[in-house]
Amino acid sequence: MTTSQETVVLSGHIIDSLILAKVLDTILIMGGTFDLEEVRIGKTREETSRARIVVRAATAGLLNDVLKAIQPHGAAVERESDCRTALAPADGVLPEDFYATTHLPTQVRLRGRWIEVEGIEMDLGIAVDDQQPAARAIPMGEVRRGERIVVGREGVRVVPLERPRERDVFGFMESQVSAEHPHGHVVADVAARMLRLRDGRRNGQPDSKVLLAGGPAIIHTGGREALTWLIEQDLIHVLFCGNALAAHDLEADLYGTSLGYGLAVGRAVPHGHEHHLRTINRVRGIGSIDAAVRAGVVKDGIMAACIRHHVQVVMAGTIRDDGPLPGVLTDSVQAQAAMRAAIPGVGLALLVASTLHSVATGNLLPAAVPTVCVDVNPSVPTKLADRGTFQAVGLVMDAASFLNELARALGRAA
Amino acid sequence: MTTSQETVVLSGHIIDSLILAKVLDTILIMGGTFDLEEVRIGKTREETSRARIVVRAATAGLLNDVLKAIQPHGAAVERESDCRTALAPADGVLPEDFYATTHLPTQVRLRGRWIEVEGIEMDLGIAVDDQQPAARAIPMGEVRRGERIVVGREGVRVVPLERPRERDVFGFMESQVSAEHPHGHVVADVAARMLRLRDGRRNGQPDSKVLLAGGPAIIHTGGREALTWLIEQDLIHVLFCGNALAAHDLEADLYGTSLGYGLAVGRAVPHGHEHHLRTINRVRGIGSIDAAVRAGVVKDGIMAACIRHHVQVVMAGTIRDDGPLPGVLTDSVQAQAAMRAAIPGVGLALLVASTLHSVATGNLLPAAVPTVCVDVNPSVPTKLADRGTFQAVGLVMDAASFLNELARALGRAA
Amino acid sequence: MTTSQETVVLSGHIIDSLILAKVLDTILIMGGTFDLEEVRIGKTREETSRARIVVRAATAGLLNDVLKAIQPHGAAVERESDCRTALAPADGVLPEDFYATTHLPTQVRLRGRWIEVEGIEMDLGIAVDDQQPAARAIPMGEVRRGERIVVGREGVRVVPLERPRERDVFGFMESQVSAEHPHGHVVADVAARMLRLRDGRRNGQPDSKVLLAGGPAIIHTGGREALTWLIEQDLIHVLFCGNALAAHDLEADLYGTSLGYGLAVGRAVPHGHEHHLRTINRVRGIGSIDAAVRAGVVKDGIMAACIRHHVQVVMAGTIRDDGPLPGVLTDSVQAQAAMRAAIPGVGLALLVASTLHSVATGNLLPAAVPTVCVDVNPSVPTKLADRGTFQAVGLVMDAASFLNELARALGRAA
Amino acid sequence: MTTSQETVVLSGHIIDSLILAKVLDTILIMGGTFDLEEVRIGKTREETSRARIVVRAATAGLLNDVLKAIQPHGAAVERESDCRTALAPADGVLPEDFYATTHLPTQVRLRGRWIEVEGIEMDLGIAVDDQQPAARAIPMGEVRRGERIVVGREGVRVVPLERPRERDVFGFMESQVSAEHPHGHVVADVAARMLRLRDGRRNGQPDSKVLLAGGPAIIHTGGREALTWLIEQDLIHVLFCGNALAAHDLEADLYGTSLGYGLAVGRAVPHGHEHHLRTINRVRGIGSIDAAVRAGVVKDGIMAACIRHHVQVVMAGTIRDDGPLPGVLTDSVQAQAAMRAAIPGVGLALLVASTLHSVATGNLLPAAVPTVCVDVNPSVPTKLADRGTFQAVGLVMDAASFLNELARALGRAA
Repeated sequence: MTTSQETVVLSGHIIDSLILAKVLDTILIMGGTFDLEEVRIGKTREETSRARIVVRAATAGLLNDVLKAIQPHGAAVERESDCRTALAPADGVLPEDFYATTHLPTQVRLRGRWIEVEGIEMDLGIAVDDQQPAARAIPMGEVRRGERIVVGREGVRVVPLERPRERDVFGFMESQVSAEHPHGHVVADVAARMLRLRDGRRNGQPDSKVLLAGGPAIIHTGGREALTWLIEQDLIHVLFCGNALAAHDLEADLYGTSLGYGLAVGRAVPHGHEHHLRTINRVRGIGSIDAAVRAGVVKDGIMAACIRHHVQVVMAGTIRDDGPLPGVLTDSVQAQAAMRAAIPGVGLALLVASTLHSVATGNLLPAAVPTVCVDVNPSVPTKLADRGTFQAVGLVMDAASFLNELARALGRAA
Repeated sequence: MTTSQETVVLSGHIIDSLILAKVLDTILIMGGTFDLEEVRIGKTREETSRARIVVRAATAGLLNDVLKAIQPHGAAVERESDCRTALAPADGVLPEDFYATTHLPTQVRLRGRWIEVEGIEMDLGIAVDDQQPAARAIPMGEVRRGERIVVGREGVRVVPLERPRERDVFGFMESQVSAEHPHGHVVADVAARMLRLRDGRRNGQPDSKVLLAGGPAIIHTGGREALTWLIEQDLIHVLFCGNALAAHDLEADLYGTSLGYGLAVGRAVPHGHEHHLRTINRVRGIGSIDAAVRAGVVKDGIMAACIRHHVQVVMAGTIRDDGPLPGVLTDSVQAQAAMRAAIPGVGLALLVASTLHSVATGNLLPAAVPTVCVDVNPSVPTKLADRGTFQAVGLVMDAASFLNELARALGRAA
Repeated sequence: MTTSQETVVLSGHIIDSLILAKVLDTILIMGGTFDLEEVRIGKTREETSRARIVVRAATAGLLNDVLKAIQPHGAAVERESDCRTALAPADGVLPEDFYATTHLPTQVRLRGRWIEVEGIEMDLGIAVDDQQPAARAIPMGEVRRGERIVVGREGVRVVPLERPRERDVFGFMESQVSAEHPHGHVVADVAARMLRLRDGRRNGQPDSKVLLAGGPAIIHTGGREALTWLIEQDLIHVLFCGNALAAHDLEADLYGTSLGYGLAVGRAVPHGHEHHLRTINRVRGIGSIDAAVRAGVVKDGIMAACIRHHVQVVMAGTIRDDGPLPGVLTDSVQAQAAMRAAIPGVGLALLVASTLHSVATGNLLPAAVPTVCVDVNPSVPTKLADRGTFQAVGLVMDAASFLNELARALGRAA
Repeated sequence: MTTSQETVVLSGHIIDSLILAKVLDTILIMGGTFDLEEVRIGKTREETSRARIVVRAATAGLLNDVLKAIQPHGAAVERESDCRTALAPADGVLPEDFYATTHLPTQVRLRGRWIEVEGIEMDLGIAVDDQQPAARAIPMGEVRRGERIVVGREGVRVVPLERPRERDVFGFMESQVSAEHPHGHVVADVAARMLRLRDGRRNGQPDSKVLLAGGPAIIHTGGREALTWLIEQDLIHVLFCGNALAAHDLEADLYGTSLGYGLAVGRAVPHGHEHHLRTINRVRGIGSIDAAVRAGVVKDGIMAACIRHHVQVVMAGTIRDDGPLPGVLTDSVQAQAAMRAAIPGVGLALLVASTLHSVATGNLLPAAVPTVCVDVNPSVPTKLADRGTFQAVGLVMDAASFLNELARALGRAA
């Protein structure tokens, strides 16, 4: 009775990130066995560890399954070989058995050298140019017929995230939802990071942009002034939202209401529910939000602050929208592409009160970007983690309370 | 000290629908006073009632506000006049002060006659052709420059819904969320109505289509077989969904997994999270879901049943989508238009496990269409009611439990 | 074919509270008919209205059912008679057909006079002393054999609540859950009312106590300092809580942790989950919380502030408790009695982050007490309303955000 | 610069349970270092592994902290010594520094021998009798002055759970909440286990009782018949509930309503909300639920089935209760003791639709008891896991859907 075997190597912070244990566990669960041929464990948190593991299974098929299962943990087959590739058979179609990315840093072996995959993001393919050599993550829809795409798992390795140096809320390997932890610390850590990033940005450091993706509950619950202030303080640099957040922000400016609820009087006003329609219609008449701000029709608020402070805004449309406002990207593929284009350089992501935008943005973010997901519904951060955005810290708060507390932590009066 | 006054008339089931009380209450709250000049109350549930109310306010402006506030309850100013209109100033822009619709049956007075507004839906404008004469609800984005649009509230009246004759769960005036009521009755009433509608449809009766708008949790929680069965029994005639429901349905067929969770083995399978990507890629390679079904690649499930049973499917894209599948309408305005086009003839709407699709569909449905909103999260039906879809009965259940119980109530074994 | 009939009288704010409409609707729904013999409608919000309604039904039984159904709306049968009574058959047992109270102001007719029922609360019986004459609401468990108890519905009338004069969030007839309204107004209205009540209390006005019933999430989410401050400012006068809130408050003082989470360091500390046990054990060793505060072992926080500021505290035990702390009333009947005894004089109730305490306190509060229910889970205020506490304004916020915002609105720095 | 050091030994399934990795990680995080002196890793899932670790820290205090932190993972200091003990200083008070239990199997070393701690449960002390020798977990409140109690962590070891042999939903080390997994498998696995346990129970096997702890939503959502059937089939052997579940079950029998909602007519019936009060009053008049069943007053339902099938019922009171019913243990300490007494012999726990009972029961269950927590609110199973009941499988379903599906999986028709 024979078995197949293969030697794999794991290296990095494989102990304190639980990776060695998970790999061994996976082998056993799937029915394989192993020898730990060599384990060199780093004695400090800075030193990396390394293990060579001989994996055995009853059949070559099972062995292959096991190797596939442990490869995402960084277990590279020792007999290193170049990645295999195939040509895309048609526009918008990847070859069979294409390698599907995770959002962890990833390398492919091309002509004997390990090359970093650019633009990493989960659930994409990898297009390679073996002349350069170069590799980049590519959405299925953007593939062109004949492009060379990585297939199989050989010659691909992912690099587990290192635990960050800061001892803040982001310094953990797994996402956590904080319904029952004091929010103050999380907010304080986010604030501290935002200040560091603003400093970094002013000094030309890379990855110093702060992204906020948010839903209209920011307006409804009363967080509009705080978010406007954050933008005016140069603390937010990219905004992802939908038609509703923009429309309700503009409604608040033009009519003093949100969903028809009078913000000053504290109760629903007659026909207030029509205000967002009239707002959208008016801005459509003017032609653009930008023009409405420049013309002085829209005086204050989130959108006005974004325009005045050169915040990059991507507004994506949905089938719920009225109007929509000019500037809303109604095509979801185009909107996704615009969001994708705005991600490079982001060093902190705040996902606030929008399941759709939180999950969509989570899908686009590399695992290395510290992420906070704020929602009054605890299942939103949970869903985000289930969808793979494991780095997100969950915070169970309403949007206004979060933004008000964050702004106060950053020095806003009241 | 003078006051302005105006006489309004209310008629219909103004007592048992609480309309009279709400109107009087609104007048008082806003600072007006009234005389009830005549109240003729129907003595049975079939007889309608009628009240003439003299409304008084300190200023003409306040009087106007009061009249605006009570007009949505059907309070027509007695001195009847034609509706006022204005020309749309540009493509996609309604005139200032355009009348914004509710989703209740609505009439406009043109050349002395009350005309029914076609295609009523909430939050639209009303375009009129006073030659015919005719009136139809029109989305802001579809307005063409120069079209004649109703402005102000004069000459417009909405007709309160009558309580339906059936004594089932839909026989109430206000939406209700049923987290703590036995679900059995609601499901039984829905099932009975579906059978009546199928019979009606076979006999050529109008408004006998059943619409289901649903999210991917239908697949994840295990409701795929039940929904497939309902379609095969000719009990569902229109399906609104997104890329995810379709992709996970096809994944279940091609790989036997849902979100990478093995449906047969009952646990996550290695690399299962890639299956939906491979599914989408494969169908993109084939060209369409229809072709994949016809080619025998996709054998079973919701999408296959829809194709075989000529169910009208509208798949709308979002920024969360991978792929997307061929056939997904990625432009939200186009998708909304396709959904709108499929609404006429719908006599029952089931909104299952999708906040986005539930609210979007709720926006498009006339108030007269009985609607059930099923979600394990009680805030979804609440949000739907808050957004105006007051006729929706809420049911706090997971998608699979609902669909399985519904299918059993309709005769499915097991 | 004969019918039974009876004349009932409705008076009060029966129009703006929708009571007339509901009564007429109920009669029709149940299969009866009516004549409106006289309707005198108040012309201003201060004037009351009055209606005489002849109710008819096909049988005496049905008529009786209809009268029973409309009686809770204040529809008193005109042929006024004294209430009927029967003797309690045993300790803790009410007579068959006992009248079950609502939490609205209620009167019974004794020897020709309408007498106010003392200590009104929902779901109790009414004990009468027809010598005095006097009437009081009595819990089932406190009834003694032979006590005279009201039975049937004759000679009992409930008084609909008048809309309060203040135009604040409490100025509505029906509860509302504010997930999507700006919280600022609700918090501002609560704060303004607390200041008025503190002034009133200092001037010896009745019904000027503020009650807070809360759960341990107040500590976990970070609201301990704000609540302590509110108590120290003499803004809270009665506290209902359980073992957990007290234990975690004391743990924060003794160990600086909450649920083992280090409040200063912002992360879980080793063996921190044992701290609440050690805290409870320590206080048990000392003998009482009071002694622990007086001995200087416990220095700060909610319980210390309650002791120093003579806040009345009722701690009720549950089967989840560790310990429990000395002072916890482990018997639920005794705890309920202690809570009941603390209710008279309460002019505002804040129910914060505890389903159990919110519903239990809601059960004990008269309808006239303005009530706010704060929970991050929107189904808690909904459940409270479903259980009859219709006067509660719901606020979907986490406990810490609410208490911090409330304290700031009342002048707390930071 | 010197360091303190200590050698600890880990053995068991320390690889596939991630224990080795967690221990090493903890040492590093706390600032210690280590040498892995010996690692013997089991080659199959049955073979256990063993590691000797030299732990070093800069100070003896830090070393002690590290040892305390890794001890719950089973890391016993090699220089084995007997456990230390101290005498309880007063009734109901444990000595300072008492050892607080986890719910994992635990042993203490007495006179050189490792003794199993009886009645293990989280958050208790350990009382020892070193004459026997014997050890048992003891609640704080039950300690008597002078009892010998384990203090510190020396001479105490906890035994990590082994992964169970069955490959069902319980075969995992960590709890999981299944909002997005097909429920069918979980229910099927629970059903299979219930059948095995019933067989086992009939054959006199230990640990073959099935416990259900549930809330009144079982009745409200329509699960009463299914639960009654499960009891009649001898599939449930212990029931933990409150006054409400029992009252609503009896109300359904006496009045055909649940919370006043007519179960047969499918809508609220007049004065239905009084039915539970009348039910409670009636049973109080009779004297006990048992007498009401024997007298034929109560004919059917959950409580009747429990009495007829000798199911052990513990009803615990709360401050929300009306009445309460005879038999409800109103004292929470007594109720907890009665629940504790019913736990031995339980081989499966179903926690259904009650946060209070789920958490309270979770606190009492040893980690080795497979547990399912069913709630329509996903935060309940999450909270249970956060409170330490890590073995619970979470299922996001309403109570009726779960019980109906479970009963069907066990052979119930319909």
